[in-house]
Amino acid sequence: MRDGLQNEEKVVPFDIKVKWIEKLIEAEVDILQIGSFVHPKRMPQMADTDKLFEYFAGKAGETILSSLVLNSKGYERALACGCDMICFGVSASETHSQKNTGKSTEDALNMIIESAKLAINDGKKVQCSIQSAFGCGFEGKIDEVKVINIAKKYIDNGIKNISLADTAGHAYPEQVTRLIGAIKKYYSDTAITVHFHNTYGLGITNCYYAIEAGAEYIETAFAGLGGCPFTKVAAGNVCTEDLIYSLNRENEIISIDNSKIIEVTKEAEKFFDKTLEGYIYKTK
Amino acid sequence: MRDGLQNEEKVVPFDIKVKWIEKLIEAEVDILQIGSFVHPKRMPQMADTDKLFEYFAGKAGETILSSLVLNSKGYERALACGCDMICFGVSASETHSQKNTGKSTEDALNMIIESAKLAINDGKKVQCSIQSAFGCGFEGKIDEVKVINIAKKYIDNGIKNISLADTAGHAYPEQVTRLIGAIKKYYSDTAITVHFHNTYGLGITNCYYAIEAGAEYIETAFAGLGGCPFTKVAAGNVCTEDLIYSLNRENEIISIDNSKIIEVTKEAEKFFDKTLEGYIYKTK
Repeated sequence: MRDGLQNEEKVVPFDIKVKWIEKLIEAEVDILQIGSFVHPKRMPQMADTDKLFEYFAGKAGETILSSLVLNSKGYERALACGCDMICFGVSASETHSQKNTGKSTEDALNMIIESAKLAINDGKKVQCSIQSAFGCGFEGKIDEVKVINIAKKYIDNGIKNISLADTAGHAYPEQVTRLIGAIKKYYSDTAITVHFHNTYGLGITNCYYAIEAGAEYIETAFAGLGGCPFTKVAAGNVCTEDLIYSLNRENEIISIDNSKIIEVTKEAEKFFDKTLEGYIYKTK
Repeated sequence: MRDGLQNEEKVVPFDIKVKWIEKLIEAEVDILQIGSFVHPKRMPQMADTDKLFEYFAGKAGETILSSLVLNSKGYERALACGCDMICFGVSASETHSQKNTGKSTEDALNMIIESAKLAINDGKKVQCSIQSAFGCGFEGKIDEVKVINIAKKYIDNGIKNISLADTAGHAYPEQVTRLIGAIKKYYSDTAITVHFHNTYGLGITNCYYAIEAGAEYIETAFAGLGGCPFTKVAAGNVCTEDLIYSLNRENEIISIDNSKIIEVTKEAEKFFDKTLEGYIYKTK
């Protein structure tokens, strides 16, 4: 509901968001990112994030509702509306970091770590991500040692869930295996989350390799919605229902009710009035 | 040039085919299937197959030009026009086999083996495929033992290149690993070819797993062209240039000039006047 919808020009109204979120909760997804505490003028698609958290207080069953927090103002809003899980992030690319935050990677990292510690003290579930972990739309290659060192600093500061985000969609299987392997080798009890974009058609392939390498969480979006501002092509997220369908072909290893996700995708297709990226929903 | 173009309604004229084939030869693809010896009325897209082989005699460099042969009349045509490599096939699905050939899998297999032996005696390179090897659009699941037994019979009859064709696009990674592994375990000197369709978005993922399992040849189509008549959705082949781009991200392991393939895809996009499936060509 966040990375998928924030790149669509057409703003999804609150009532429709509620309907979609209800279905995704019924599907029993583990974690659902429902918004971002960003300035409403900067991103009108996410303006109702606070209202959504208030609406869903006590109504999310086993599903953890998360949001993205970018700064201390956003963190205050997250606290005020009762957000369960807070996601912070820093970019491994200096150019990307400067453009997004006006800070170097190191300065942004120090700030994020302070915020994350606060959130942990406030009893929140916390995830910290490394954006552009597999390459950058501005800089190209990103030194893998730099990425591993950011992960190390997060972990040394008590953060137990690290997301490797392929912001520009540059990741490829060998790299996924190597990077997760390097972190898991030294920090086997750290939960690794991965987040791939489909710029070069490798999203689902990277997910398979990430799972093999020991990733615990895979971030996806229904319909494969979403995009990345650093590429020339629409580069959606990995499509939730396609990934679940594939993983469950032989045995049910993902206990999510995929039919509910497909319902949401079909409603999104009608709402946005265009053919979406996913494959499975077109066959059902 | 065969499985990619035969599903397009718009027939590519001979002169344009020549131009595209020339570029694919310049790119140094190993094997290029340029047509099918099927009745021209049944498939007008392939009507110039004989003429193409005659035109390219002695002009293909290191690239082997292949074609699909369905029956003895087709084989005579292949011999007459000097085709280098002949591809035969049988379906592992009884329903698919009956629909395509009016024969059971066993009867079709016996016929194909006789034709393949003839072709080997005539000095041709031969590939024999198992269609619907990973599932069938009509029957669903296909018994893996049946697929392995067809491969065994091919191999026992001297056929050294076996293609596992995912006609309906049902293959998934665990199955790819298992099926190739089973054949390789007993027949390690048999070259395995794989041919995936993208029905559920797993084409490129399956290629990675096939390569890991020891497949020697991957059949793809530029632009991801092609379709499968047994699925509700357009289910193209794996996109040649996307796969090469991915495999070569770290080190050049595929020595094909991908820029030439991308040129062909861009010309195909203009010719068919529609956005094609491939990702890479949209970013270059």
